Amino acid sequence: MDLNPETFWQGLVEHKLVIPVRVQGAFGRGPVFEDVLEHVNAAITTLSAADGAEVYTFPPVIDRQIIEKTDYLDSFPHLAGTVFSFFGKERQAKELSERVHAGQPWADLQGMTDVCLNPAACYPLYPTMTGTLPANGRLVTMTNWVYRHEPSPEPTRMQSFRVREFVKAGEPDAVVAWRDQWLDRGVTLLRELGLPANPDVAADPFFGRAGKILADGQKAQKLKFEVLVPVISADNPTAVCSFNYHQDHFGSVFAIKTADAATAHTACLGFGLERVVMALFRHHGFDPTAWPHAVRARLWP
Amino acid sequence: MDLNPETFWQGLVEHKLVIPVRVQGAFGRGPVFEDVLEHVNAAITTLSAADGAEVYTFPPVIDRQIIEKTDYLDSFPHLAGTVFSFFGKERQAKELSERVHAGQPWADLQGMTDVCLNPAACYPLYPTMTGTLPANGRLVTMTNWVYRHEPSPEPTRMQSFRVREFVKAGEPDAVVAWRDQWLDRGVTLLRELGLPANPDVAADPFFGRAGKILADGQKAQKLKFEVLVPVISADNPTAVCSFNYHQDHFGSVFAIKTADAATAHTACLGFGLERVVMALFRHHGFDPTAWPHAVRARLWP
Repeated sequence: MDLNPETFWQGLVEHKLVIPVRVQGAFGRGPVFEDVLEHVNAAITTLSAADGAEVYTFPPVIDRQIIEKTDYLDSFPHLAGTVFSFFGKERQAKELSERVHAGQPWADLQGMTDVCLNPAACYPLYPTMTGTLPANGRLVTMTNWVYRHEPSPEPTRMQSFRVREFVKAGEPDAVVAWRDQWLDRGVTLLRELGLPANPDVAADPFFGRAGKILADGQKAQKLKFEVLVPVISADNPTAVCSFNYHQDHFGSVFAIKTADAATAHTACLGFGLERVVMALFRHHGFDPTAWPHAVRARLWP
Repeated sequence: MDLNPETFWQGLVEHKLVIPVRVQGAFGRGPVFEDVLEHVNAAITTLSAADGAEVYTFPPVIDRQIIEKTDYLDSFPHLAGTVFSFFGKERQAKELSERVHAGQPWADLQGMTDVCLNPAACYPLYPTMTGTLPANGRLVTMTNWVYRHEPSPEPTRMQSFRVREFVKAGEPDAVVAWRDQWLDRGVTLLRELGLPANPDVAADPFFGRAGKILADGQKAQKLKFEVLVPVISADNPTAVCSFNYHQDHFGSVFAIKTADAATAHTACLGFGLERVVMALFRHHGFDPTAWPHAVRARLWP
């Protein structure tokens, strides 16, 4: 069952599903890979068609204050990507050019901008929710590019990837019930796609020694679930969906109130689209025209 | 004819076409905005269906060596976005956390990563073309998110936006003929969409005093064309398409050879998808259901 990551990568490359680049986790995607990804995303849309979610799209860069205000840098300083640029005049530009051409370091000629890379598809949404929610709360879906600074030769661990996200904001009970409903939906969809998917309680990859305590608390409270599919390893299956119940964290930071003036609770769930696609190639082969009929019928109805 | 940028922005916001955020040029897009954008992109795909372009997708972050090797930082140091992250241990993480919570600067606790933001949709493609091209060269199309560090309250000047790009690599004559064909196609499509589009020779926004000389040379050689549509101002119309003939620049840097072993020439063209969409809202109103029949028929055939 287990697969050398390098072997899987070579298969993806040889079938032109991915286009290799010099840096890890930032490869290009070929047309067949994208076609599968679009149809996985469309199947998720169909699942949720009756829910009436608002559909937003956010760019890959977001207001840097969002990661500052939400304690993201306490929990995941090592994963955050910040955007720097050049703020100098002619003289500094000349020095920048000379250093770049000489192969010398030039990081000190860059300054921090007001934007950072989006670390999780839902982050740009919360500040736009400040105020009072409608009586039934709000439900929003997005497909956004997210960034994690974790270069790796393992194909499913990317620096840059797309997440199909749903966010529910409202009363605690409604938010938890909604999260539970989607956990069933996610597992069902993935199994219908022929993937050996299983849900499990999970924890985020918190930084440092204190991170272990945070992760244990998160697991004990069952705040995070994942749906896992073996891609590289049966013992360490890949998380292809993630479900996070934030309680009142984002509601407090961004002053999001329920109709009866309580601090709103929020939960989000995301399908890692590239990971679902890779799991399909891993389990059904590199040529989608040869996939089992039921899987093809589910994706190209 | 002229329009206060703030008035146009308010119209986009009031009609929920864009979702305002605190920083400039990084706003969210609503479902109607995205629907128009997808159909503009599909119309471009239809235009080029017979050309047999290879379809790639690259993430918003790319190998930093690409901007170092291509002299991008000589020409546009002020527009480039580089990705920084945290490389420290426990002690530095504690300091980062304390500074962030105290509202103090923390840029010096970030280090440069191996990736930067993609400054132009075609950049990640060139290094993947190293080697010898087929006899007729290569044609590739992509829809990628690009970044420019130019925050502005003017809606069409964004930090992060999508470009539908085409790249041709091959013999100089074939590349130039292809570019000219697309200049006609672009103007025709935009006029069919009811937009007062006109092509013009153009220059890039090169940095600094030497930039003026570079821009004059680029114009004299007619290396860059744009298709312009008035959105905010009749005197300063907005570039919605850009056509760049690079001669042998990328071919030399990345050792791209024609079938007869000469250095390949390249040209690219890009539709600024958000700008085309905004031009449509500017000229036909904020409600696409009320747009002229011919425009609707062209976009939703």
